[in-house]
Amino acid sequence: MQDALIRLTRHWAEHGCLIGQPMNTEVGAGTLNPSTALRVLGPEPWRVAYTEPSVRPDDARYGDNPNRLQTHTQFQVVLKPEPGDAQDLYLASLEALGIDLRAHDVRFVEDDWASPALGAWGLGWEVWLDGLEITQFTYFQQSGGLVLDPVSVEITYGIERIMMALQGATHFKDVLYAPGVTYGEAFGQAEYELSRYYLDDADIATTRGLFEAHAAEARRMLDARLPVPAHVQVLKCSHAFNVLDARGAIGTTERARAFARMRALAHEVAELWVRRRAELDHPLGDATARPAKSTAAAVLPKVTAPAAFALEIGVEELPPGEADRAAEDVATRLADGLRQARLLTDASSMETFTTPRRIIVLVRDVEPREPDTEQVVKGPRLAAAYGADGAPTKALQGFARSQGIDVADVRTVTVAGREHAGHVRRVAGRPAAQVLAELLPGIVTGLRAGKNMRWNAPGLSFARPIRWLLALLDEYEVPFTAAGLRTGRTTRTHRTADPSQITVPDAAALIPTLRAHGIEPSRTARRTRVIEDATALARHHGGTIDAPAEHRLIEEIVDLVEEPVAVLGAFDDRYLSLPEEILTTVMRKHQRYLPVRDPRGRLLPRFVTLANGTCDPDTVRAGNEAVLRARYEDASFFFRQDLQRTPEQIKEGLERLTFADRLGSMADRSARIAAIAGELADLADPSPDDRAALRRAAALAKFDLASSMVIELPALAGTMAREYARRAGEDEAVARALDEMERPRAAGDAPPAGVPGALLAVADRLDLLTGLFAAGAAPSGGSDPFGLRRAALALTVILRAVPQLSAITVGEGLAIAARHQPIEVPPDVLTEAGRFVARRLEQNLLDEGHAINVVRAVLPHADSPAHAEQAAKDLAELLRSDTFTALTTALQRVLRIVPDGTRPAYDPALFQEPAEHHLHEAFTQVHEALPPRPDLRVFNVTANPLVDPINAYFNEVMVMDENETLRTNRLGFLATLKDLVNDILNWREIA
Amino acid sequence: MQDALIRLTRHWAEHGCLIGQPMNTEVGAGTLNPSTALRVLGPEPWRVAYTEPSVRPDDARYGDNPNRLQTHTQFQVVLKPEPGDAQDLYLASLEALGIDLRAHDVRFVEDDWASPALGAWGLGWEVWLDGLEITQFTYFQQSGGLVLDPVSVEITYGIERIMMALQGATHFKDVLYAPGVTYGEAFGQAEYELSRYYLDDADIATTRGLFEAHAAEARRMLDARLPVPAHVQVLKCSHAFNVLDARGAIGTTERARAFARMRALAHEVAELWVRRRAELDHPLGDATARPAKSTAAAVLPKVTAPAAFALEIGVEELPPGEADRAAEDVATRLADGLRQARLLTDASSMETFTTPRRIIVLVRDVEPREPDTEQVVKGPRLAAAYGADGAPTKALQGFARSQGIDVADVRTVTVAGREHAGHVRRVAGRPAAQVLAELLPGIVTGLRAGKNMRWNAPGLSFARPIRWLLALLDEYEVPFTAAGLRTGRTTRTHRTADPSQITVPDAAALIPTLRAHGIEPSRTARRTRVIEDATALARHHGGTIDAPAEHRLIEEIVDLVEEPVAVLGAFDDRYLSLPEEILTTVMRKHQRYLPVRDPRGRLLPRFVTLANGTCDPDTVRAGNEAVLRARYEDASFFFRQDLQRTPEQIKEGLERLTFADRLGSMADRSARIAAIAGELADLADPSPDDRAALRRAAALAKFDLASSMVIELPALAGTMAREYARRAGEDEAVARALDEMERPRAAGDAPPAGVPGALLAVADRLDLLTGLFAAGAAPSGGSDPFGLRRAALALTVILRAVPQLSAITVGEGLAIAARHQPIEVPPDVLTEAGRFVARRLEQNLLDEGHAINVVRAVLPHADSPAHAEQAAKDLAELLRSDTFTALTTALQRVLRIVPDGTRPAYDPALFQEPAEHHLHEAFTQVHEALPPRPDLRVFNVTANPLVDPINAYFNEVMVMDENETLRTNRLGFLATLKDLVNDILNWREIA
Repeated sequence: MQDALIRLTRHWAEHGCLIGQPMNTEVGAGTLNPSTALRVLGPEPWRVAYTEPSVRPDDARYGDNPNRLQTHTQFQVVLKPEPGDAQDLYLASLEALGIDLRAHDVRFVEDDWASPALGAWGLGWEVWLDGLEITQFTYFQQSGGLVLDPVSVEITYGIERIMMALQGATHFKDVLYAPGVTYGEAFGQAEYELSRYYLDDADIATTRGLFEAHAAEARRMLDARLPVPAHVQVLKCSHAFNVLDARGAIGTTERARAFARMRALAHEVAELWVRRRAELDHPLGDATARPAKSTAAAVLPKVTAPAAFALEIGVEELPPGEADRAAEDVATRLADGLRQARLLTDASSMETFTTPRRIIVLVRDVEPREPDTEQVVKGPRLAAAYGADGAPTKALQGFARSQGIDVADVRTVTVAGREHAGHVRRVAGRPAAQVLAELLPGIVTGLRAGKNMRWNAPGLSFARPIRWLLALLDEYEVPFTAAGLRTGRTTRTHRTADPSQITVPDAAALIPTLRAHGIEPSRTARRTRVIEDATALARHHGGTIDAPAEHRLIEEIVDLVEEPVAVLGAFDDRYLSLPEEILTTVMRKHQRYLPVRDPRGRLLPRFVTLANGTCDPDTVRAGNEAVLRARYEDASFFFRQDLQRTPEQIKEGLERLTFADRLGSMADRSARIAAIAGELADLADPSPDDRAALRRAAALAKFDLASSMVIELPALAGTMAREYARRAGEDEAVARALDEMERPRAAGDAPPAGVPGALLAVADRLDLLTGLFAAGAAPSGGSDPFGLRRAALALTVILRAVPQLSAITVGEGLAIAARHQPIEVPPDVLTEAGRFVARRLEQNLLDEGHAINVVRAVLPHADSPAHAEQAAKDLAELLRSDTFTALTTALQRVLRIVPDGTRPAYDPALFQEPAEHHLHEAFTQVHEALPPRPDLRVFNVTANPLVDPINAYFNEVMVMDENETLRTNRLGFLATLKDLVNDILNWREIA
Repeated sequence: MQDALIRLTRHWAEHGCLIGQPMNTEVGAGTLNPSTALRVLGPEPWRVAYTEPSVRPDDARYGDNPNRLQTHTQFQVVLKPEPGDAQDLYLASLEALGIDLRAHDVRFVEDDWASPALGAWGLGWEVWLDGLEITQFTYFQQSGGLVLDPVSVEITYGIERIMMALQGATHFKDVLYAPGVTYGEAFGQAEYELSRYYLDDADIATTRGLFEAHAAEARRMLDARLPVPAHVQVLKCSHAFNVLDARGAIGTTERARAFARMRALAHEVAELWVRRRAELDHPLGDATARPAKSTAAAVLPKVTAPAAFALEIGVEELPPGEADRAAEDVATRLADGLRQARLLTDASSMETFTTPRRIIVLVRDVEPREPDTEQVVKGPRLAAAYGADGAPTKALQGFARSQGIDVADVRTVTVAGREHAGHVRRVAGRPAAQVLAELLPGIVTGLRAGKNMRWNAPGLSFARPIRWLLALLDEYEVPFTAAGLRTGRTTRTHRTADPSQITVPDAAALIPTLRAHGIEPSRTARRTRVIEDATALARHHGGTIDAPAEHRLIEEIVDLVEEPVAVLGAFDDRYLSLPEEILTTVMRKHQRYLPVRDPRGRLLPRFVTLANGTCDPDTVRAGNEAVLRARYEDASFFFRQDLQRTPEQIKEGLERLTFADRLGSMADRSARIAAIAGELADLADPSPDDRAALRRAAALAKFDLASSMVIELPALAGTMAREYARRAGEDEAVARALDEMERPRAAGDAPPAGVPGALLAVADRLDLLTGLFAAGAAPSGGSDPFGLRRAALALTVILRAVPQLSAITVGEGLAIAARHQPIEVPPDVLTEAGRFVARRLEQNLLDEGHAINVVRAVLPHADSPAHAEQAAKDLAELLRSDTFTALTTALQRVLRIVPDGTRPAYDPALFQEPAEHHLHEAFTQVHEALPPRPDLRVFNVTANPLVDPINAYFNEVMVMDENETLRTNRLGFLATLKDLVNDILNWREIA
């Protein structure tokens, strides 16, 4: 291992890196070392490499976990400005470590990075070696809340992992650290003891004191304008926070507050550092002063017959989906431009191809040049152009001169109905190459993705850096420059291929050339190949791939590789005893492996991974199997550990998990959910079986949050509760409720199907909303650290989805939840929370395609989301019916005339006109016939008898009579009518 | 610089070192990293190398000082067990750095290391490269208060210094850190800002809080049996202490308390670590399990004629003086042994030779073998040996058999006056080689120095490791083994010579062989050469070396080199404007350079350094000149800085120097000294001039402690006060007083000559003693952190040396000082302090050669040391006079008979015998004649008339008369007489 560090050090020193030292105070990552955190700021160039023992108290496992350490060794490289070939330098460093890149499967898998505590983020990748994440590779975009210019590349190697892979060790303790000494022999004791400190023994009050002390010192150093000591203090502050966190002493709100405080300090440190470096006149120079690129005019080729055009935009590995979106965009804009120039004919065709590293648009039959056009140039008025003698006047002569034509060539042209002397100039159409050369720079510089980054190419901004441009019109290059990047006829093949750059003879040859070099540019072809090859491998072992079920994963894989090479791997049978979700979650989410199933759909101990291009399948298989084994071994360990305890015993652990400041522990929260769900059940009146299941599930609510498995894999919350409950002999209904109460996990996820689960799920969200609103942690701006938006949305989704819950309103639910909070929930807070939920519902209905006026019209029913949804559906339908239109029109007359605040009271004795009596009669009948909270269709039918009487009323009765008594009585009557219909809809929205 | 770190890393990795990482919390030195501090404990083998950025807040200089940094880079190597050739491995690492060992002067200069805070110590060297200390090399003996077994070697490189030397940089900021980037460019800002933090801006209360918090956590972790986190907390605690110290917030007593606390924690950590490693069954093995050495019996050579014997004990560089002492010891024991064996004759001679690396004893004319001897063996009594018939009895036959002799050979022997049958056995003398082989192991294993160490040779203990033994008797090896080390005929030359090991043909050839290889074994020859060569070089520049004045330095140099090669260096003239003491202190104490003076004794800008063996003089000169320049540049900087302020202004800085807990700042102490000196002056009644000088000097007392120069070079306290006072235009008497008040600095140093300086010096010590005794910081056991023993001694020395101070008694002085303390000084504390001073005086007088009974007899006068000294001298003289003997004898009769506590009262009317009247008469006359506090000679003369009356009294008067009235009256009278003489001496001591 130490040899690896020496080799990396030497490699990067040879590539111009200054060799730094680890930070001499605990840091969670190499990024926090001032050699990164501060140096990436400002304009000064900087290249550094250093080892950083990174302390993550939360990852302490007493040295038991084979892959997780409280102190792991990072090797950190920063290249500022990013040099354009950092990926290649990185791959060369792997070779320096003795890794044969041709044999292994090395992949750049999207992984963006953000540190809220640092106010920092960047875009980049995890680098995978045969499925093992060995490096984080990031284009640093922001640090300390400041936008970085120039952009730095940050490369962070996880040394223990790399060494485990290279040495084939299954536990970090078995890694040979130095000749004859294993990691465990050298550092095992420290790993155990520091784990003890971080997890069990650090004194919480003392550590809180340290947090405050260092935060205060940081504050003072900022005031003293000393960014370096301030940064050191922020780091110490952050370490104290991490220790508290590992000790389970940090609640949700405390966490948010601490983060905000550290972020603000980090931001000030960054600003101060930048100012101080400027005051010191940037001792290391200014990397933003870039030399001007030569802009020698290029010679444009000319073609004479319809030609093929190929554009390839070469990029560093794009996130899944981005290449396709970008290709569509490029194709559309290119088509628009070519069409405007009339270079496309009916025979023309356009095709797009994408891989993670390239966006290709191929146009066939591009016309060789734009058609010529005529341009009318207006001269003097005809009257002023020729003298009485018909001779050209001076004005005309001047015009002719200015146009460079002979007076004899002047014609009469009509402009705005007047005749002028004039000239029709023939404008020659531009050659296709010129049109393209003028069009393409804008297309390239205009490329944008969902999340964009900058790199060392000012003017460009995209998901990942654009590194090369190929533009060929038949055999000719179409020369243009986009933000300093010049086109050519060179494309790149796999990074590890030799040669890795090749020239393309002509546009039509691009796709075949790439294929000849082992790159499949067609997504469709890659998808087919993934499915066919994976299926074939699976079949060989009596299994299959459920391609439709794995659709999303396959799409992701297709976007991860340029040439999918399926490799079948196996894992030990015994892991099949684990719940399937554990196995598939690890395979799909963590490893992008396709699970293999037997014909009855049961998992087989096999998986298919897709390598990127040719490799040594045995090496790649062995590597991936080792990764999966480690992950499953971990999972088994946690599973076994958890099964040694009953759900009740596991649940005791909730006491130690702080939920949020002033809102107690997770155990308190679990108890509240149980109580709230009980009260909700009284409203929903479930069956005795459901009630029994609810009671038991409520007693265990969220117990699995304290299980080792869920602490490790939070995505399995609910799932593990179900599994552990089953294994503990709980009723299936109870197990199911514990699972369902966590649903829906995300937008689009299925809500609970059973009543007990639904009641618990609703109680869960109500508790979260009331508690945190009362604690003053309502979301503000873009920030929603507690996921309250998601909770509110889930609440409306469940209430809409589960009919048995229709009796539960949001307002009543919140009020019930409020009564169970440990802190006071004032009425205005409840109102605000209700409005917050209503807004989620509104957005949700809009997202589902309801018209905006319809959604707004039904919002008075937001308190009952199911009702509101039904009303929206009904309203959309009714708006197309004549009877409803008539009713609406009539009612609008009533609503319009009654001023707000009119008292709904009248004396029928004061009615004077027959129409008044008729309407009163109709009103009385409708009033009696209308059920409470009628649905809209019922209302339409029941209230329709009002239409004619209303219309007659307004035709025959002068509401605003001069006699005040009459007037008041009539308005009072109409107000009573208004009240009858007012809550049905927000009528104004459909006026 | 980073290249150097990479090279060192590689070098040590190749030599089996594990490559560690810097500690991720601030440490003051690489030693504190657990890779050293904990790993050197216990039996496990361990080899490690790592870089350690070492934080010494106290060394912060805002990046201004060319050589001093708050964070300097150490490269640390630990070899456990010490491998026996660590020095060679180390030298090879210098070669790996590109240092040509043949051209440079590399020396191992004694430098022992101890960290009270760590409970750690070791013996070893500073390694000098052309006069520059580049490495600390230590044989670690103890850590955390535990004795280390096996012993480790610790090698600590000062990287910035090495790089400055190699790159010829004169400021650390100019060192090229990486290609194109200087240290200053990369880290200058951090150096400045962290200096600001440590020196000016760290919050003292907060940092004190951190100290307490981490100390408490360390305590808790010890209780939890977790040595690693406990160690981390001790380190954090220590860093907090260092920050407080740099902020000037630590008083003397607080320092002592904090040290004791940290030491105790470190000790517990060490003990716990050792126990825990044992519980873990020593994962790295056990290095104390040494393979048994083969002990094949050696063949002893035989010589037939008187032979020469040479013994060379080869060692690693011994501290000055040790080789000579050891050689004397070896020679004595060898001579004793040889004489006992009668192998020495009148013709024999013995010579010793020493160098730092060898102890040689040469004996000429060793007899070839011991003379034979006869041994009488006693058999049965003669009577029992022969029967009546004269035939041998069975007893005799048995005796003869047991002796292996014939009965006929039995003789009559006389033992203890009785006749026995017996046998005279002839014992053949052992050959000289055998005698030596039996004698020498004990001599070698018995070698001891003032300070001894252990290394990887159990059974040996000496100032430095013994590495080889040569023992030749003429051309023969005398084979023996001492603690695993075997003799041979191989000696070693300079480490950098080729070959560095040579064989010696015979004993007589040893010295010439060494000389032939450039080693001068004779101290005398080396001394002559040092003086002659240095003088010759100095003369060449019109200068000279004051050899007698530099005697101590020359002796040290002679013990530092095996072959002195004088190299003359120069420094810039302008430094001559600095006070001479600064220049010579640096040259002598720091660099071991001989100052060069002109014929009038004034310093010339030249120096002579003595390299160890041949080298490239230009390289060595340049290196040494650079070192001296840096040191003088430092000194000039401080001097200039100090001269920008008046003494008064400098003195303001005393406010910021805490003196001791509850005793205020150094400014408070200065004010107390002034006040105390004022009151003392009233007793001493100095001349008006002296009084004026005292008043002014008192106002400035100790001001230079706040000067930059004294903070850097504390040995110059007083000297700088004098210089700065002179330059500020103060009277010479004032300047002199300020200098003298710091004297005597050490035992043997001259006391102040002038009265103002003496009064201040006395006031200084009185303040120190009363204050610290009152604060409960009196020395206990071997520990005297505040130097109170030295202060008490100085007090008695001054009071004895300066006649004008004779009126000042210790008791009165302490009482005066007590009145000025900010805390109460109870009477018993004053008494205790007085006794403490008296014990110093007692020891001092004994050291000066006074007889113990004399010293004890005069101790009643300890309150006036001058008086006590005079009394001791007088007493020694008087004890030889008859009159005094007669007086003493007479007085003893009185003293013996009067019980303690007898009331000194009598009624002359009750006298009955004439002798009573006579004695009363004599007593009355003597009583009137005796002056108060008479000196002893006066007392002898004045009191002598008592002798006869006393003797007559005891002959004629029955003191213990049966009549109680008479008895009481007589005892009362004698008690009165006793009182008269009782205070003169402690008569019992000379009884």
